[in-house]
Amino acid sequence: MLGKIALEEAFALPRMQETTRWWASLFAVDPDKHAAEIKDITDVRIKYMDRHGVGFSVLSYTAPGVQDIWDPDEARRLAVEINDYIAAGIKSHPDRLGAFATLSMHNPAEAAAELRRCVRQLGFLGALVNDTQRSGPDGDDAIFYDSPDWDPFWSTVTELDVPFYLHPRNPTGTLHDKLWARRKWLIGPPLSFAHGVSLHVLGMVTNGVFDRHPTLQVILGHLGEHIPFDMWRINHWFEDVKKPLGLACKGTIRDYFRRNLWITTSGHFSTTTLQFCMAEVGADRILFSIDYPFENFADACDWYDGMHLNLPDKIKMGRENAKSLLKLGEYKDCHA
Amino acid sequence: MLGKIALEEAFALPRMQETTRWWASLFAVDPDKHAAEIKDITDVRIKYMDRHGVGFSVLSYTAPGVQDIWDPDEARRLAVEINDYIAAGIKSHPDRLGAFATLSMHNPAEAAAELRRCVRQLGFLGALVNDTQRSGPDGDDAIFYDSPDWDPFWSTVTELDVPFYLHPRNPTGTLHDKLWARRKWLIGPPLSFAHGVSLHVLGMVTNGVFDRHPTLQVILGHLGEHIPFDMWRINHWFEDVKKPLGLACKGTIRDYFRRNLWITTSGHFSTTTLQFCMAEVGADRILFSIDYPFENFADACDWYDGMHLNLPDKIKMGRENAKSLLKLGEYKDCHA
Amino acid sequence: MLGKIALEEAFALPRMQETTRWWASLFAVDPDKHAAEIKDITDVRIKYMDRHGVGFSVLSYTAPGVQDIWDPDEARRLAVEINDYIAAGIKSHPDRLGAFATLSMHNPAEAAAELRRCVRQLGFLGALVNDTQRSGPDGDDAIFYDSPDWDPFWSTVTELDVPFYLHPRNPTGTLHDKLWARRKWLIGPPLSFAHGVSLHVLGMVTNGVFDRHPTLQVILGHLGEHIPFDMWRINHWFEDVKKPLGLACKGTIRDYFRRNLWITTSGHFSTTTLQFCMAEVGADRILFSIDYPFENFADACDWYDGMHLNLPDKIKMGRENAKSLLKLGEYKDCHA
Amino acid sequence: MLGKIALEEAFALPRMQETTRWWASLFAVDPDKHAAEIKDITDVRIKYMDRHGVGFSVLSYTAPGVQDIWDPDEARRLAVEINDYIAAGIKSHPDRLGAFATLSMHNPAEAAAELRRCVRQLGFLGALVNDTQRSGPDGDDAIFYDSPDWDPFWSTVTELDVPFYLHPRNPTGTLHDKLWARRKWLIGPPLSFAHGVSLHVLGMVTNGVFDRHPTLQVILGHLGEHIPFDMWRINHWFEDVKKPLGLACKGTIRDYFRRNLWITTSGHFSTTTLQFCMAEVGADRILFSIDYPFENFADACDWYDGMHLNLPDKIKMGRENAKSLLKLGEYKDCHA
Repeated sequence: MLGKIALEEAFALPRMQETTRWWASLFAVDPDKHAAEIKDITDVRIKYMDRHGVGFSVLSYTAPGVQDIWDPDEARRLAVEINDYIAAGIKSHPDRLGAFATLSMHNPAEAAAELRRCVRQLGFLGALVNDTQRSGPDGDDAIFYDSPDWDPFWSTVTELDVPFYLHPRNPTGTLHDKLWARRKWLIGPPLSFAHGVSLHVLGMVTNGVFDRHPTLQVILGHLGEHIPFDMWRINHWFEDVKKPLGLACKGTIRDYFRRNLWITTSGHFSTTTLQFCMAEVGADRILFSIDYPFENFADACDWYDGMHLNLPDKIKMGRENAKSLLKLGEYKDCHA
Repeated sequence: MLGKIALEEAFALPRMQETTRWWASLFAVDPDKHAAEIKDITDVRIKYMDRHGVGFSVLSYTAPGVQDIWDPDEARRLAVEINDYIAAGIKSHPDRLGAFATLSMHNPAEAAAELRRCVRQLGFLGALVNDTQRSGPDGDDAIFYDSPDWDPFWSTVTELDVPFYLHPRNPTGTLHDKLWARRKWLIGPPLSFAHGVSLHVLGMVTNGVFDRHPTLQVILGHLGEHIPFDMWRINHWFEDVKKPLGLACKGTIRDYFRRNLWITTSGHFSTTTLQFCMAEVGADRILFSIDYPFENFADACDWYDGMHLNLPDKIKMGRENAKSLLKLGEYKDCHA
Repeated sequence: MLGKIALEEAFALPRMQETTRWWASLFAVDPDKHAAEIKDITDVRIKYMDRHGVGFSVLSYTAPGVQDIWDPDEARRLAVEINDYIAAGIKSHPDRLGAFATLSMHNPAEAAAELRRCVRQLGFLGALVNDTQRSGPDGDDAIFYDSPDWDPFWSTVTELDVPFYLHPRNPTGTLHDKLWARRKWLIGPPLSFAHGVSLHVLGMVTNGVFDRHPTLQVILGHLGEHIPFDMWRINHWFEDVKKPLGLACKGTIRDYFRRNLWITTSGHFSTTTLQFCMAEVGADRILFSIDYPFENFADACDWYDGMHLNLPDKIKMGRENAKSLLKLGEYKDCHA
Repeated sequence: MLGKIALEEAFALPRMQETTRWWASLFAVDPDKHAAEIKDITDVRIKYMDRHGVGFSVLSYTAPGVQDIWDPDEARRLAVEINDYIAAGIKSHPDRLGAFATLSMHNPAEAAAELRRCVRQLGFLGALVNDTQRSGPDGDDAIFYDSPDWDPFWSTVTELDVPFYLHPRNPTGTLHDKLWARRKWLIGPPLSFAHGVSLHVLGMVTNGVFDRHPTLQVILGHLGEHIPFDMWRINHWFEDVKKPLGLACKGTIRDYFRRNLWITTSGHFSTTTLQFCMAEVGADRILFSIDYPFENFADACDWYDGMHLNLPDKIKMGRENAKSLLKLGEYKDCHA
């Protein structure tokens, strides 16, 4: 399928090569290739896009990124640097590349302001944030965005009418990290990423963020970070037990997946799981994505293109849903 | 379907009424009914079993149980009391009721000895443990069973040739608890249970427990605590990235689900999810269960009995797999 | 779910009671109840609709109907009588009841003219035809609508911009009937209906009807008369073998299901099969329907309403797709 | 996966080259390659088997074969010739090749005798018959095997304890053929094959063959010739309508699929459909097969080997079910 759109595609700052390398050592078999690919913006990347039928990629700064920086000033400066860097980097290819804003999430007002700058002045398509913001004097704390403190930020997101991608980061805190350190092979895609994001986004649900911001659009990668699997169980416990005991959110979990939540195929190229998600989430809220360069174009695109599936849903998930969500009216998908 | 077998069915000690009530307040809309049902062993329970076509129930002490007690002596004494109590309680109904041993998990040798006593002297069918053992001077630590220290225990489990049910408990530790406390509606079935058990059992996989004990049989409730959802993703990351980077476990995640792991339907009565699990785990490793009295017989059994499904798998998952795993040769399933 | 729309809902002429009875004897356990229900238009029917959350029903004359009448004049007169009868019958309930035209299919021009009259003058929403038209001096022949002779008819259908429901009828011809007579329990829903319609509609595909009439919309009941099951196989043989050998249709079978074909749930209330069809056909082309009074409201609606499924698709299949296809702008679905 | 077993694998008599060519012209893009492959027994075939991990193939004479010959004497002689030919042809490779008997189905006693000879004297593993037997003075009649006349034959099949593969043939009879001739691209795999076999085997169900021969094992190709798609609908109409109206078969359709029927993957290499069949039929009754040389080894085996699926079912469907059904105790699957 030509003209596919991908939304969880990473880049790194050339000057951060050391961090990139450390992160790659956890997630890449060939760190040199990985480092080269993640540093590149328009060269290797667009060749891959051409070869594998990807018409448009939305770029975002690689995890853990700014969410790993517990000094607020340093975090703010780095976010601005990253956003300016990628705005310049993609300028020459507006028909092929877009960007999600990188945000320091220490302060709701500052995060909102930077997002506004990115969307209004730089033409960014939304934001991608790596789970909780590391904070505290030693980086042992974690800021969640599901408390009323963050309402001003979410108001800005909905006012700007752009989606917010909640991407994973490593788990939080000393004791917690000890648990994971002894099971280090589970850190990242095999388990910890889904633990972090599922807690965070379901916290947003139960703490009423989507009730207070009913038009907020949040994207989850990796086919939904386990949540679709438990849609029945979550719905059952919320509706039959937790609400009678006091849970105050207005909708059912299925309502939030209808109105507020999206999932992407990033890093999860399984026909069986996708079809399960089509039943539990619906093809109207599913978006193709790759997670390049942590995953490769061939794995993602050969799978998606070769998958036997009804065409309306294949086209929607591969391109049309993203065009609509990201308002890519000017994107002509000439390749389609 | 008559003669169904259920494996995650709870009871409580009458003298622990206060704890039972506290736990019920988190998980039951009608705490009085819940308290009465969980205290009962043969009266209400067998009436439900008769009405809903359950031929045999395997009883276990309700969570968090002994795993919540960080004093080793108190934990050991309580486990013995519970095991003696339930052995007496089910004695009159050997054709309808069995038990899983309750174990203090502070010490591998002591846990093994109590399991041996329960299986050899009391006729128990295996053990059910509530995730990690709370420990440390203030109960802030958690003992996992995935380190080599626990090999003597697992050797006893396999020598006795009985299954080990890894049941959830609340998450562990102070900071961790703070995260959950602010998202309290996610504690338990909606999220935290699956986080705890999935970390623990995948820790057993990656730390080689099943390689050192290849005949060990571990049962997971709730259709596998999210793991089947990510079977493709875990397999991909283990085989394509983590093993090249050093992960040493011998088999693929699918191998462990073929040889060592079982999942039950406890608390997850969804046809869509069950059929997804039939693809990812296989009907040969799926067992019907209820999670009574946290779930009710009618929800579980009306769903299972009314589900349109091929008969070989329905009969296997409803009864035959459990008969084989639990060696219920003497169980005549006269009701079938 | 309130406001559901149903599209394969039968009525009979009161004066045809004998035929109704004969047909009922093949398909109804309680022929009296069946005869009363099928004769009724606004009384029993709307009570059922209210009780089971059906907002709008599209009525059509029961099979085999006019397609069973091999005398062209008699067939034409009967079609007109039926259309006038039902137009009058539903007039008082424009917000709850619509109709599909009954057509004699002996002559394309006459069929087109009657359809035009029904749509333009009587406000009908399309046509429902019972497979091939019985014809010939002894009724042993069958007229298919997949030859170029029928292009004028299809041009009228697309000009009027209304859907055409291809409903089953009994198999055709003497020898053929002998085969079925010895396997009489397979006549109708268990097998012969799907055989007839699948041959007819795939004949339309391979004989180029949809290529010559690219906006033609054809509805199939019973989740698609087996065709979705073989989507992969049909696609494989058409594309990889038959087209190289000369099959001339322009699109793939998936293209026709994307642009021209719809399926309804009439008489097939299975979650497993529906979810399979959501993968093979897509929720955008699936429509809720009952097949009342051959099926009952409770079976269809309890199943659909109680089914655990993502909400966007449930709402689309239950109501929104039909509103769009039938242009029910004035239908306010106040019950939704 | 190594050691796969395939059960619908065709050969032709070298002297029948003309018929082979005619048949190939309907079904093969490269008739020369097809003719060479179908004539070969041990050369090309075993190379393919080695390359694609097929340990054992059960060969059968290509359709329409003896079922197309309406002269009983000629049919009987040809069947004997074919059976002797293939017995000699596979003798040198008992660990890689087996055979299903070819039978003239004009006379139950003669068919039974030839099957007995093939099983007892030639070591064949069962029979494969191409739907109805063409018969009558002009070949316009068709013999079905679902009447009591055929009980002696079925008694022999069950006495010999071998499976009977009901393979498709073209549709039957003059008028019928006219219908298909005008839709010639639907003849064979796209539609007519499934129509023929589904009528025949459901005729066996409703006419009580499996009630009179409860241990009879019948194999259907192509994932069950559409029947699994309508399992719910057939079950509903048999149990809720047809039995109250007089249908006399003892079991439900699901009972017959549990005890008597098997399906193979021949010519249907779709993960989505296979997983649907795993829900409706069950992995215990599904067998891998190719349909070589009408399908090719690479399509079938690359699909099956690359499919993400739980291992117990993959191994059962790929090999173990067939070993058990065909009693291939001596088959060592050294390649597994």
